[in-house]
Amino acid sequence: MTYPTRAFGTRTATEPLSLFHFVRRSPRADDVVIDILFCGVCHTDIHHSRDDWGRANYPMVPGHEIIGRVSAVGADVTRFAPGDLVGVGCMVDSCQRCGACGKGWEQYCENGSTFTYNGVDRQDGTPTYGGYSERVVVAQGFVLKIPGNLDPAGAAPLLCAGITTYSPLRHWNVGPGTRVAVVGLGGLGHMAIQLAKAMGAEVTLFTRSPGKETDARRLGADHIVLSGDADQMAAVASRFELIIDTVPYAHDLNPYVPTLATGGTLVLVGYLGPIEPTLNTSPMVLKRKAVAGSLIGGIAETQAMLDFCGQHGITADVEMIPIQQINESYERMLRSDVKYRFVIDMASLKAMA
Amino acid sequence: MTYPTRAFGTRTATEPLSLFHFVRRSPRADDVVIDILFCGVCHTDIHHSRDDWGRANYPMVPGHEIIGRVSAVGADVTRFAPGDLVGVGCMVDSCQRCGACGKGWEQYCENGSTFTYNGVDRQDGTPTYGGYSERVVVAQGFVLKIPGNLDPAGAAPLLCAGITTYSPLRHWNVGPGTRVAVVGLGGLGHMAIQLAKAMGAEVTLFTRSPGKETDARRLGADHIVLSGDADQMAAVASRFELIIDTVPYAHDLNPYVPTLATGGTLVLVGYLGPIEPTLNTSPMVLKRKAVAGSLIGGIAETQAMLDFCGQHGITADVEMIPIQQINESYERMLRSDVKYRFVIDMASLKAMA
Repeated sequence: MTYPTRAFGTRTATEPLSLFHFVRRSPRADDVVIDILFCGVCHTDIHHSRDDWGRANYPMVPGHEIIGRVSAVGADVTRFAPGDLVGVGCMVDSCQRCGACGKGWEQYCENGSTFTYNGVDRQDGTPTYGGYSERVVVAQGFVLKIPGNLDPAGAAPLLCAGITTYSPLRHWNVGPGTRVAVVGLGGLGHMAIQLAKAMGAEVTLFTRSPGKETDARRLGADHIVLSGDADQMAAVASRFELIIDTVPYAHDLNPYVPTLATGGTLVLVGYLGPIEPTLNTSPMVLKRKAVAGSLIGGIAETQAMLDFCGQHGITADVEMIPIQQINESYERMLRSDVKYRFVIDMASLKAMA
Repeated sequence: MTYPTRAFGTRTATEPLSLFHFVRRSPRADDVVIDILFCGVCHTDIHHSRDDWGRANYPMVPGHEIIGRVSAVGADVTRFAPGDLVGVGCMVDSCQRCGACGKGWEQYCENGSTFTYNGVDRQDGTPTYGGYSERVVVAQGFVLKIPGNLDPAGAAPLLCAGITTYSPLRHWNVGPGTRVAVVGLGGLGHMAIQLAKAMGAEVTLFTRSPGKETDARRLGADHIVLSGDADQMAAVASRFELIIDTVPYAHDLNPYVPTLATGGTLVLVGYLGPIEPTLNTSPMVLKRKAVAGSLIGGIAETQAMLDFCGQHGITADVEMIPIQQINESYERMLRSDVKYRFVIDMASLKAMA
């Protein structure tokens, strides 16, 4: 059986998202059918639905921070059963044969990961539609278990914002005593602070807004540095082993590089595009510093992140919205008017006539 | 006793180097007095003597690729005796107390290394003068042992060009099977190829000049890629775990980043300044790639490099010059007319009236 499915989507880069009907496939032997309870709203959803990156395929149903309950499973599914609370993140498939997939780096699949929306199914060539919908059908290898002690709505953003910041923290070996800084307190930044703190790091927030201090400290920041204050910046010279830069637009990296310790790395997780103003190599050469990028995380790593969040009771700060407010929420996100992640309550979709 | 010493130096940024007289200090208890046999000519010598970086202190005697024989030692010197063949590189002191010095990273000393020339002695505040001179007096902790099987003149460039490329190869764990690329075949590049090959790597040279192939293969390159040939560049997409970029001027890094494997790093060792044209972060984020810098190496690491070169019979390709040709050699270096390093035969200085 296939599944007629209601969703919110768009057919062009310029029109608002609206009710959209499509059909989810009949589950294959290793597929899990998931009734979606909540879906987080990621900045990427705005970029893709408006074709900011020139890669949009329409019609499009965004959403890759999916929490739901298993409603049915294919014949070969061993890891999930109806009723399980599960999640789906940014990917629903990868080639499973390349070197990257072999290392568990499905996000860096050499043949291209299949993204949860705006992608193409590897088996039947149909478009993938995301989590702004009633249900999704996903191969069990790309379905995550959600720890039972976490609030399901607050767990939704872990599937993208959580793993995007967790992966570089692990890759660059953050642990007790590591000095970590986070640039920007938004959806990614508020996860990075919590995760780094739970790993035992000393955590500093770089922000341009003096008003962020109370929230930052509640989330776990030990220090707050106003990035526009030259004295405060000078006071943290050569301090951080790792900087997680979550800013999603072009910004000057040069003031941050001197705050890296010798051998330190600034990791961009939010911005794709030219570095402007341009980066000066001098402090990088003179103290063996690096500027790097990082993209979400692999499936096993995402499960490890979810388990870690379960152990430490970490979820996102969310503002729940009905799906009918999705276009307004995009506008508010563009004004940074959200603390810190919108999550769609999918009951609002199911209640539609 | 102090040592009246002849040298070649300059008193301003604009005049040519010429004969200069100064006095080397009386050796302290831990000092080694070295009669200089050979001194390599590094691009840095040109930059500093002409004040290209705005940090010049005059009068200046350049030279930090020094090979000589010990002629006298202070009372506390245990590691060296008169007659030993020794070397001195870019540094003659560091604070010895900071975290970086504690790790053996004297080049990244948090209180500032004392450079072999254009620096200031930490004990008496006198200027440091480099290796374009008859002799030098250096604390034993910054004196290196030169393996007896190496040609002394060819070993001189190991003290800067050698360690500058060896350190990042080691730091980024190059070993058997690692795919390493080297950008540029000059003083640094011709060392990087030899060292990476001796570590067991598969070595590729990126060059803009078709004529470099024979030399590159003799030095150990397995492959040569013309960086201006789009087809050749595309053929090495996602290939290299490490790229050692030795180019000493602003150049476009964007064509090289896609040739890094997922998780790979491009290390700048030759260029201080703004990255122009600017770097695009997309391939860095999408495949966890990094752009980093690296500066020479620590003292223990420099000794390890020299021992490694002794084991593998690695020296620089040098063109010997008398010191009277130093200004002409600078002009030839600026035209890339040297294969691959000028080395001054200091007998030419000692023979002067």
